[in-house]
Amino acid sequence: MSRTLDVRRRILEDNDRQAAALRASFKTGGTLVVNMISSPGSGKTALLEATARDLAGRYAMAALEGDIETERDAERLRARGLRAYQILTGGSCHLDARLVARGLEDAAFPALDILFIENVGNLICPTSYDLGEDFKIALLSTAEGDDKPFKYPAIFARAGAVVITKADLGPHVSFDMDVVRGQIETLNPGAPLLVTSARTGDGLEAWYGLLAERLEAKRRHRA
Amino acid sequence: MSRTLDVRRRILEDNDRQAAALRASFKTGGTLVVNMISSPGSGKTALLEATARDLAGRYAMAALEGDIETERDAERLRARGLRAYQILTGGSCHLDARLVARGLEDAAFPALDILFIENVGNLICPTSYDLGEDFKIALLSTAEGDDKPFKYPAIFARAGAVVITKADLGPHVSFDMDVVRGQIETLNPGAPLLVTSARTGDGLEAWYGLLAERLEAKRRHRA
Repeated sequence: MSRTLDVRRRILEDNDRQAAALRASFKTGGTLVVNMISSPGSGKTALLEATARDLAGRYAMAALEGDIETERDAERLRARGLRAYQILTGGSCHLDARLVARGLEDAAFPALDILFIENVGNLICPTSYDLGEDFKIALLSTAEGDDKPFKYPAIFARAGAVVITKADLGPHVSFDMDVVRGQIETLNPGAPLLVTSARTGDGLEAWYGLLAERLEAKRRHRA
Repeated sequence: MSRTLDVRRRILEDNDRQAAALRASFKTGGTLVVNMISSPGSGKTALLEATARDLAGRYAMAALEGDIETERDAERLRARGLRAYQILTGGSCHLDARLVARGLEDAAFPALDILFIENVGNLICPTSYDLGEDFKIALLSTAEGDDKPFKYPAIFARAGAVVITKADLGPHVSFDMDVVRGQIETLNPGAPLLVTSARTGDGLEAWYGLLAERLEAKRRHRA
């Protein structure tokens, strides 16, 4: 097994080098980059649809959509007027920095304030792959249950913020927000925890506030 | 990258050999083995809780629970009187035949009619790893959305049956059963598609019927 671990370490080191190059170019452009990670069907695309609708006038935004198959998510976002480019991973369970670099080249987006990278739906594999982002967000829908942070600790420990989605389903599922809050405080003390519903709009202002604050901090830092 | 592919192929070949040994021993024992695969929070454990409650008198059953962290799922099942053994994968996004063989040795279950193997919550990685099972089931909750089979085609194409879960959430989410049915018919013609709710009990009889039919077929085949 040591040869396997060796190959894996080399893959991650290669990825880190590519990610550093991406990060440098995003810094030059002053673009805030958010790497969105969750289970399939947690509502990453729905959050971006709402964001596209509500922030269209305020920021130049685009999305890179990672999936194993189908152009569906990019199509959903383009239908809301967001620039979106679909990256198909060819079976791989995560994006990597090379795929992101190639996707950006093909997409040829104009200058951006915010770039969203919607990773492949998977709570595990995407966690170790730096994409040059400013921060990762971990999304968790209320329908998935309140035991998930401790069951998938790596992503919840590394995320720059945790976004609870589908809060509107709360009354119909068994999901105790205090239980989740306790797990996040243990794994990732001080990480913002946002409770949202793309369907009702609840909590979206806090999400937009987080984006504004991080973008401003990035540009202040650059100045 | 060819060295990486090489290592991956060798890992899968090793796994296939181990899985063949497991399959032979399950055949000798006449134990039906079901490998359950889904996203995190689709309701694999909830389906097993209901199954434990409803079939306890009829079959000798047990479960191997695969997770990255926590003993929570095995504890939930033991609380329902089901024999359950937790396998922690040490960060890996799937079970493999070696982990299953070791888990069975440690668990020391008595003779079983049905062994459930609840894989790590992940729609991608577990798909390629044969665990010696009779068939895989793919679970999909209505909360995850009706676009998932085409987005994660490998597992839906290979599953011996597809189980839709959380049918009770149907009225509160956007999920068109006909859309899912069409995708499954394309990917996996003839595969049984069961619509269930562990909460209300809807559709569970069809699930129990499928288990009974497959167990009977296995034992007839052995005789």
